[in-house]
Amino acid sequence: MDLNEKALHLHKQWNGKLETVSKSPVRSREDLSIAYTPGVAEPCRAIHTNPADAYTYTMKANTVAVISDGSAVLGLGNIGPLAAMPVMEGKCVLFKEFGGVNAVPICLDTQDTDELIKIIAALAPSYGGINLEDISAPRCFEVESRLKEMLDIPVFHDDQHGTAIVVLAGIINALRVTGKKKEDCHIVVNGAGSAGIAITKLLLRYGFRHAMLCDKSGILHPDSPDMNWMQKEMVKVTNLEHKTGSLADALRGADIFVGVSAPNIVTSEMVSSMNKDAIIFAMANPVPEIMPDAAKAAGARVIGTGRSDFPNQVNNVIAFPGIFKGALEGRAKAITEEMKLAAATALASLVSDNELHEDFIMPEAFDPRVAKVVAEAVKSHITG
Amino acid sequence: MDLNEKALHLHKQWNGKLETVSKSPVRSREDLSIAYTPGVAEPCRAIHTNPADAYTYTMKANTVAVISDGSAVLGLGNIGPLAAMPVMEGKCVLFKEFGGVNAVPICLDTQDTDELIKIIAALAPSYGGINLEDISAPRCFEVESRLKEMLDIPVFHDDQHGTAIVVLAGIINALRVTGKKKEDCHIVVNGAGSAGIAITKLLLRYGFRHAMLCDKSGILHPDSPDMNWMQKEMVKVTNLEHKTGSLADALRGADIFVGVSAPNIVTSEMVSSMNKDAIIFAMANPVPEIMPDAAKAAGARVIGTGRSDFPNQVNNVIAFPGIFKGALEGRAKAITEEMKLAAATALASLVSDNELHEDFIMPEAFDPRVAKVVAEAVKSHITG
Repeated sequence: MDLNEKALHLHKQWNGKLETVSKSPVRSREDLSIAYTPGVAEPCRAIHTNPADAYTYTMKANTVAVISDGSAVLGLGNIGPLAAMPVMEGKCVLFKEFGGVNAVPICLDTQDTDELIKIIAALAPSYGGINLEDISAPRCFEVESRLKEMLDIPVFHDDQHGTAIVVLAGIINALRVTGKKKEDCHIVVNGAGSAGIAITKLLLRYGFRHAMLCDKSGILHPDSPDMNWMQKEMVKVTNLEHKTGSLADALRGADIFVGVSAPNIVTSEMVSSMNKDAIIFAMANPVPEIMPDAAKAAGARVIGTGRSDFPNQVNNVIAFPGIFKGALEGRAKAITEEMKLAAATALASLVSDNELHEDFIMPEAFDPRVAKVVAEAVKSHITG
Repeated sequence: MDLNEKALHLHKQWNGKLETVSKSPVRSREDLSIAYTPGVAEPCRAIHTNPADAYTYTMKANTVAVISDGSAVLGLGNIGPLAAMPVMEGKCVLFKEFGGVNAVPICLDTQDTDELIKIIAALAPSYGGINLEDISAPRCFEVESRLKEMLDIPVFHDDQHGTAIVVLAGIINALRVTGKKKEDCHIVVNGAGSAGIAITKLLLRYGFRHAMLCDKSGILHPDSPDMNWMQKEMVKVTNLEHKTGSLADALRGADIFVGVSAPNIVTSEMVSSMNKDAIIFAMANPVPEIMPDAAKAAGARVIGTGRSDFPNQVNNVIAFPGIFKGALEGRAKAITEEMKLAAATALASLVSDNELHEDFIMPEAFDPRVAKVVAEAVKSHITG
């Protein structure tokens, strides 16, 4: 069986990758009268008197909702809520297995932005945090930012920020390997959707100064056609010299390439035209923007991909479980920029100087320290 | 510690009565690539091609959402979504423990009927069924009936139908005990909210002919003031002789009293004025409409309450887990009237002629046959 057949077979066997399990025994009439009526009325009364007690008496304290509208699922596109469910269940599995966080998958049957926001806001009382997933750009930016304003629990679009945190962690270590300085590096991010934009924003916030965003039409500049509102915002803070041209033009003399785009669109020639010790994050899945061996042969020094069968896998799973673990444990009201930077720095620091190598810049997903240090990083930046 | 203190203490210890647990192991990179990307894309594609495959590859097949807006929680009233959560979690615990059905609690931060309906409809793809809970009357009737029209999964307001099924089961056995005939019995239902109305409807559908609904103002009749639209519907099928008067007037010459109302409002004199071998279901909680010993002393033959410390406890837990177990196993698109009647009959039949006694008309909540026979009853009435 190949991987796809195996996945289908096992999903059928599981018939749902998650189950709900009771923590309160129900073996006697007394058990019943405590977990349910009449005893259950007492914690209800307590919460009614003091709403913060919801964190003491209910699963809100340690439960995240993983919410999608199915509009931009993996590389599959707009496949709708029913078909998005296996991904959301998988995400919930990872939340629990890696972060010890309960997570419930919710796929919503609407793609109207206002409705989506209203529905998610109405769902909020039941959860300690909301992980948005696979919502198409630029709607995802509005959905997230409006919900963040409305709600007093963390709202986090993982396709944006999880990816950005892990990429930044990898780049921090790639700088350690190559000795490059963030102030001097020229970065090209290819793919101006949710991930590409969030990566660019976080890199700038970390202290990089020179970034260009590209999409299918080439370098984004103030006169690029058909930009959405968020892309228009981005050209105010990237490509400050207003360069125009193709991806090949962008890469000439660049230090870092970050691809969240399409297979095989970076050539050996493009890599050769980059600065010495080029850093390549080619994260298109399953086929990267350029294969690692080709990139290496063309002179790249550090190469990461989204795949587990090459070194330096860029995988959100080292970020989101720890992010929410920390946010829930510390009752953060939001995930801030400082938390994201701290999480990336903490992840990078898990690779010691001894281990650090051009083929080992990322901590392993199964490293048990991962969720813990990320959670601590988040908690240390909770304010008010 | 009294029960309330114990309930509070244990709820704090549990910090949520439910958890989500993974059925798919994540111990290796290969596990990860099957439960999540890239393998997870395959079941997504399958469902996108054939939506019914959601029941094969996701937890929709065996998961119910327990949804409330917190507007009518137990006897506590409109305490809102946060404070309603312990009840919904408790319900989910019972779904799993008694029916083997996964259930997730959802408390919604809106009490606007149209919004509630829109939100629940948008949530539907993720679940195999929806159990509505603790939504105030008469809004609950509209919420349920409109959702039933919109959705292709079962929608079931347990406060109405779960209660009605269990009461009917008890009354069927009370008739066996007393030898009364349903066609001849006069029934008085006190409390014209969601439970009282649903009980009356199901009793009429079962074949009772003479029912009266009462509320605080007495017997409902066509000229009763301040009736909501559902109560107006009910006076078309109850009290066909258009009697007026108090609860005491209603009970004179009645055979069956069903109370879903308030403590201590039925007097010994009222019970004495009923027909011989009167049947009393006094379900106000925690203090019944009349205490069982007083009712018995006044001549009642069969007495049920909502309490576990008296004989004949009327408890929804013998109905809803089996109802959804059967509906999910048989992929019912709705819970029909036939299913409810069959479930009540099946429950009643669990008490054998040998066991049947005025103090034993209800199957025990912990009887392992309960959920199974209810599920079979539901499944045997699935059509189309």
